[in-house]
Amino acid sequence: MSLEAAVHIQSLTASNFSTVYNLFSLVIASMLFTALFLFASQRRVAPRYRTAIVISAIVCGIAAYHYFRIFNNFEASYPAGATIDAAHPLSNIEFNEAYRYVDWLLTVPLLLIETVAVMSLPRTESRSLLYKLVPASALMIGLGYPGEIANSTGTRLLWGGLSTLAFLFIVFVMFTELSRSVVRQPVQVQGLIKRLRTALVALWCVYPIAFLFPVFGGSFFGGEGGFVLRQAGYSIADILAKAAFALVIFKIATIRSALEDSAFDLDHEATTAGSAKVRSAA
Amino acid sequence: MSLEAAVHIQSLTASNFSTVYNLFSLVIASMLFTALFLFASQRRVAPRYRTAIVISAIVCGIAAYHYFRIFNNFEASYPAGATIDAAHPLSNIEFNEAYRYVDWLLTVPLLLIETVAVMSLPRTESRSLLYKLVPASALMIGLGYPGEIANSTGTRLLWGGLSTLAFLFIVFVMFTELSRSVVRQPVQVQGLIKRLRTALVALWCVYPIAFLFPVFGGSFFGGEGGFVLRQAGYSIADILAKAAFALVIFKIATIRSALEDSAFDLDHEATTAGSAKVRSAA
Repeated sequence: MSLEAAVHIQSLTASNFSTVYNLFSLVIASMLFTALFLFASQRRVAPRYRTAIVISAIVCGIAAYHYFRIFNNFEASYPAGATIDAAHPLSNIEFNEAYRYVDWLLTVPLLLIETVAVMSLPRTESRSLLYKLVPASALMIGLGYPGEIANSTGTRLLWGGLSTLAFLFIVFVMFTELSRSVVRQPVQVQGLIKRLRTALVALWCVYPIAFLFPVFGGSFFGGEGGFVLRQAGYSIADILAKAAFALVIFKIATIRSALEDSAFDLDHEATTAGSAKVRSAA
Repeated sequence: MSLEAAVHIQSLTASNFSTVYNLFSLVIASMLFTALFLFASQRRVAPRYRTAIVISAIVCGIAAYHYFRIFNNFEASYPAGATIDAAHPLSNIEFNEAYRYVDWLLTVPLLLIETVAVMSLPRTESRSLLYKLVPASALMIGLGYPGEIANSTGTRLLWGGLSTLAFLFIVFVMFTELSRSVVRQPVQVQGLIKRLRTALVALWCVYPIAFLFPVFGGSFFGGEGGFVLRQAGYSIADILAKAAFALVIFKIATIRSALEDSAFDLDHEATTAGSAKVRSAA
């Protein structure tokens, strides 16, 4: 048995290929148009929230760029077989997992910045928080990559374990800080901050689990099934942790803008019984 | 022994190929999204700093364009071997170093303009400074190129040496002018100006060193190892000297805007009236 088989899946059934292919396309559409929505809507929020919104747009844009690359690379790595229903054999072009790591290296620090920006911390406090979190995120991703491309389970676990230390530190600090920030928030956004907190823990945990599939081993997790599930896990977690997360941040920023400056209070929705009006209209 | 071998590396191992490939992709993402961030954020600074911010965005945009070209060219020059792990042989398509020189010819004068713009010089002084620096930058790049594509060490050193005279002149003038400008700056940005000064000297020196690798010669610097290290050096120095540099300039512009015009002082706004309103609404 070749060790390479642990990393390079030798062929994908036609249905597995199209599942991954369609998911990648879904991620591109989600990221690209969330980015465009946020760029186009930054003036809907007060100036002090615009940097957070632009950074959220940039996160989705960077992800869209990398998923374009991943999509094209996937097509080149697993070209169609002789017939429509034939398996797609691995070509001489590697399926390059590095795109994800380069993406995360750029987007995770930005995600942390956009999240800290809605915590309503004094400037010095948010700066000292980011001075801890951003280097930890670089460590987390830099240490994870040698494990991702490792052929042996031991190497994968070693680097994965080191990376997990940084991961746990970030998730713990972010969870604690988001919890502390709830009481500083206007009641209208406290629920959304709690939702960010839940999303952060629930979605971020998808990544180490997907990373571990080859370690679980067996004919499913060690082979084609694990590959497909890992790509699907990373893709769906990316949509939720970047695009959906950014839209919650945008929502928080619009509500706070309306509360703080009547120029942004369209329809008096946020300060009065907006939802009651919607209900009676419906 | 063919002299050509000194310039055209005949093949790259799979791991060297993917290191360079992934670095080029990282540069594209960094440049493209720094450019978009700056375009989207120009209204965060006072009107008098917006030209410097747009020029910084343009520098990153031009670099993104050239790295798209370099990325595609690299793929065409070193196509995959028979298997994923096989070396990538040089094809009939040259790896075109001219893209970098065209890029620098356009971006270095713009980098000088954006840096002079934050020096707080009287208009006539900054104009006369640019009248010296911009032609020197054209000389530096125009003289370097014949050396870069030269097959012989003598030719490389001759043109490289002439180019270095212009290089030293620019670095000396910029270092001196940035130092003189520190005392004219508000205390809040003096540290950032000093950081620009350090970045300018430290990062710009990467270029002549990378240029000299083939001159160092030997099996490493004269061959594949030197090629990979040169591409890596140029790529990382480009990210720092253009994208990271632009973000420091943006930071200087936002701080000075806030100091000079309260409409741009978002922190002050956030810590006083804004948060008071939030608290009372809550």
